[in-house]
Amino acid sequence: MNEVSFITVAEKFKAVFLDSYGVLKNYNGLIDGVQEAIDHLRSKGIAIRILTNDASRSQQQQAESFVRLGLKGIDTHEIVTSGMMARQYLQQKILEGKIGYLGTENSAEYILQSGLEHIPVRDIDLNNIDDIAAFVFLDDEGFDWNEDINKTVNLLRRKNLPVIVANSDKLYPVSKNDVAVATGGIAKLVENMLGKKFIHFGKPDSQMFMYAYDELNLYGSFSKHEILMVGDTLHTDILGGNKFGLKTTLVLSGNTSESDANLHINSTGIIPDFICRSIVS
Amino acid sequence: MNEVSFITVAEKFKAVFLDSYGVLKNYNGLIDGVQEAIDHLRSKGIAIRILTNDASRSQQQQAESFVRLGLKGIDTHEIVTSGMMARQYLQQKILEGKIGYLGTENSAEYILQSGLEHIPVRDIDLNNIDDIAAFVFLDDEGFDWNEDINKTVNLLRRKNLPVIVANSDKLYPVSKNDVAVATGGIAKLVENMLGKKFIHFGKPDSQMFMYAYDELNLYGSFSKHEILMVGDTLHTDILGGNKFGLKTTLVLSGNTSESDANLHINSTGIIPDFICRSIVS
Amino acid sequence: MNEVSFITVAEKFKAVFLDSYGVLKNYNGLIDGVQEAIDHLRSKGIAIRILTNDASRSQQQQAESFVRLGLKGIDTHEIVTSGMMARQYLQQKILEGKIGYLGTENSAEYILQSGLEHIPVRDIDLNNIDDIAAFVFLDDEGFDWNEDINKTVNLLRRKNLPVIVANSDKLYPVSKNDVAVATGGIAKLVENMLGKKFIHFGKPDSQMFMYAYDELNLYGSFSKHEILMVGDTLHTDILGGNKFGLKTTLVLSGNTSESDANLHINSTGIIPDFICRSIVS
Amino acid sequence: MNEVSFITVAEKFKAVFLDSYGVLKNYNGLIDGVQEAIDHLRSKGIAIRILTNDASRSQQQQAESFVRLGLKGIDTHEIVTSGMMARQYLQQKILEGKIGYLGTENSAEYILQSGLEHIPVRDIDLNNIDDIAAFVFLDDEGFDWNEDINKTVNLLRRKNLPVIVANSDKLYPVSKNDVAVATGGIAKLVENMLGKKFIHFGKPDSQMFMYAYDELNLYGSFSKHEILMVGDTLHTDILGGNKFGLKTTLVLSGNTSESDANLHINSTGIIPDFICRSIVS
Repeated sequence: MNEVSFITVAEKFKAVFLDSYGVLKNYNGLIDGVQEAIDHLRSKGIAIRILTNDASRSQQQQAESFVRLGLKGIDTHEIVTSGMMARQYLQQKILEGKIGYLGTENSAEYILQSGLEHIPVRDIDLNNIDDIAAFVFLDDEGFDWNEDINKTVNLLRRKNLPVIVANSDKLYPVSKNDVAVATGGIAKLVENMLGKKFIHFGKPDSQMFMYAYDELNLYGSFSKHEILMVGDTLHTDILGGNKFGLKTTLVLSGNTSESDANLHINSTGIIPDFICRSIVS
Repeated sequence: MNEVSFITVAEKFKAVFLDSYGVLKNYNGLIDGVQEAIDHLRSKGIAIRILTNDASRSQQQQAESFVRLGLKGIDTHEIVTSGMMARQYLQQKILEGKIGYLGTENSAEYILQSGLEHIPVRDIDLNNIDDIAAFVFLDDEGFDWNEDINKTVNLLRRKNLPVIVANSDKLYPVSKNDVAVATGGIAKLVENMLGKKFIHFGKPDSQMFMYAYDELNLYGSFSKHEILMVGDTLHTDILGGNKFGLKTTLVLSGNTSESDANLHINSTGIIPDFICRSIVS
Repeated sequence: MNEVSFITVAEKFKAVFLDSYGVLKNYNGLIDGVQEAIDHLRSKGIAIRILTNDASRSQQQQAESFVRLGLKGIDTHEIVTSGMMARQYLQQKILEGKIGYLGTENSAEYILQSGLEHIPVRDIDLNNIDDIAAFVFLDDEGFDWNEDINKTVNLLRRKNLPVIVANSDKLYPVSKNDVAVATGGIAKLVENMLGKKFIHFGKPDSQMFMYAYDELNLYGSFSKHEILMVGDTLHTDILGGNKFGLKTTLVLSGNTSESDANLHINSTGIIPDFICRSIVS
Repeated sequence: MNEVSFITVAEKFKAVFLDSYGVLKNYNGLIDGVQEAIDHLRSKGIAIRILTNDASRSQQQQAESFVRLGLKGIDTHEIVTSGMMARQYLQQKILEGKIGYLGTENSAEYILQSGLEHIPVRDIDLNNIDDIAAFVFLDDEGFDWNEDINKTVNLLRRKNLPVIVANSDKLYPVSKNDVAVATGGIAKLVENMLGKKFIHFGKPDSQMFMYAYDELNLYGSFSKHEILMVGDTLHTDILGGNKFGLKTTLVLSGNTSESDANLHINSTGIIPDFICRSIVS
């Protein structure tokens, strides 16, 4: 598959959904030229939404973070996170009891702000779990892995709870070469211990696409074939976009390098409609 | 989890999504009392949609089939099939070339009626596949398993195509005790041979829930918490309903027997909000 | 990893275990120069054993097949097949009752020659299965896939039997480009339908290595570090050899091409000790 | 399947292979009556070997541990651990360089005593890994999970090394109700992050059975059908024993409770030849 110019591709669409990490920013900060690329899309009347697998910060905190990185003009409502989907799910499905969690106090604050009490796994008394109504994997930070992962395994052996994974990503980059195990990786470890499947939020699952699509249509009339999904990862951004019925563009500015792209496309069978070097190309 | 009366549960909702096989009908035909149960829901002003993992018949053919079984009053627009989702996907994503398929001529007729030519795998010349643009697993019938499954494996080894599974069910019941391998089972065999993941349609994936939800809202204003999903299978109906954010009811008139229900709920971690003997209880 | 000369590598060992397909022969017949390579090994006093994932022919039939291809001097006792391991297992573990099978009459003849009656799945009466004591996947031929695979699924749903897969290979080559689904692939389909794991024979499992090692030591004293395993497939020959503690050589004359070798080694983490173009290089 | 008396079963065999945890001991210490049961087997001339998935202690330390628990007369040579198998593998396959590891200093001491230098992952400099030749998962203790698991992931992303899992168990019991994630569980997390399969030692893999079988035959002549494998876990003890061709007995004094036994046998298809309450019954 040949690389094409992102601008040429994007101008055929009425809206563009963008992944954040690897598309707008990387471990160094904002990718050079992203402000201009975004401004250009807006100048052509193309709507923008940012879809990010992240449950560590609220929509407002995400927006502020873009400003700190130097990217201006992203409105709070233009951001969709997997954490928002998890929050929505808990509000609809869990109406009483406490929600146990693995993650930071901050992530718990905004995701679990549903009127229900939340309690970190370290504070749960395993002999007194009658009032625990659900469990959420929120973040890979904010707890002692050895102690609290084992405690989570035992909690979920003792009581059959709805378990939500607020970010399905298995790992995230921390430098040019290195990664860290993310929330989805820790949840997968616990799933393996228990032989169960939790409820996962975040791309490639469709909840974020659906939310962004519905929210976008509050501002106009957009059909699926008029929307382009842009991401750097085949099995989240491109698979999710393809399944939702959007046209998809793989960019080579993040997880997938130029030398790997065709190889990974062939070995996975996940085929983007376009490949672009980056959104600034 | 205790069994409750379906009617008592359903009356709390504005709409009910029903699986077909194991809920409305079984290998013997229509389940006794289903007509009355459906009529009762309608008399209370509760909207009905039927969500079925089936790609062998069109919406119209499904509606006629209910009439033949003796269930009256199901409108074509109230039926949502996984085949419809596959058709919609192909129309949006595949704009030129031929679509190869495994299945019956009839299933191909209605799913692939998108202006594009379709060709059964037995008629494909493996040395002349430049114009094949996508491949669809439609049905477990209409082809020679030995010959055509092997040919499909080789086609997909020679060319990297988008591959769609129009019905993800692995098996379907053919009598009280026995089952048959379904489309999703055959697709899984080919996925294993190739080490790839295809694009699956049908519950638990959200496309059918999303479609039914949007279509329902053409007829009124329905929030997710006002809709009840009813099914006999934990890992399709209940998992899918839970992930979409609906309340869910497991019925014991199909795949899941009374003696298995709590065991399967505990071993899978897929937890329905309610358990009812059947929709006629 | 760099390619080295096979002869130079092999001469450091007292015995060489060779895979058959992709090492000695391919879809065209015997690989050019194999007779000379084998003769050379023998002239150096290096013992030879052939370890093949095959349950379709007896040891004697395998030996005759080498003669027909033009390879002379392979003794029956130098051949180890996965079918022999399955036969041994059945003799030790199944002492009464009938053994059901999927495969050819010929494969059944020699594998199931243990005094017990064997019965092809098409002849089994599903309402009369009390005397069926075990089930074996023998071959991908000799039965109707659609009819008999479905019947096997239902047999194994009705009765919990020890199930043996006499050849774990998922596919086998039938020409330069094309493959066919093998016994192991069909068994995997049935495992998926049932959610169970059968007992698999054949590389990478250690039974064949163990048998060849013990048999070899009837003819002298061989330590593991004095034996070289040679094969064309990373996840059977090389993984199995590595796990058994042998030194391993990947040859590029079969499943793994020169251009794929390093890529597959890196992506699987299955690392041969040596890479050679072929055993004639 | 009906329960039978262990003594009656065992007396038909010339040797008995026993799992340790759940058979001889549990979280409370030695199971009551085990000394008498062992003494009885010996009085009948039945040979005993103990096969345990453990890489935290040497054979000598295991023997001392049995004495401390109050079980006398277990000879060092009668104990086979998965750690011994890993050590043997490293000695045969890794001839130069350093061996990185996750685990305690004590486990590293005895497993890696092969003349090669060993280095805990926390002391590895990721920018200087040319001399690291292999990596071993030894134990779930002795390191910081968050810090060192992430570091292991990055080490194995940077360099393609043979990776050994010295104990495949995913979890181990720490009290009547609770478990802890074991070495095999942590290794599985890292395998998932990398998309690779490591080399696993410990039941159900055959290395320990093979070792015990060969070692036993130094003391007499034992055929496989004269040996009984006894364990409390279907997917390690029973599956491994079945695949090796031994007769197998499931005991209900550990992982598998009386109420679960038939259910688990049916759902896994792993069928022991006998079920006994315990070895003291």
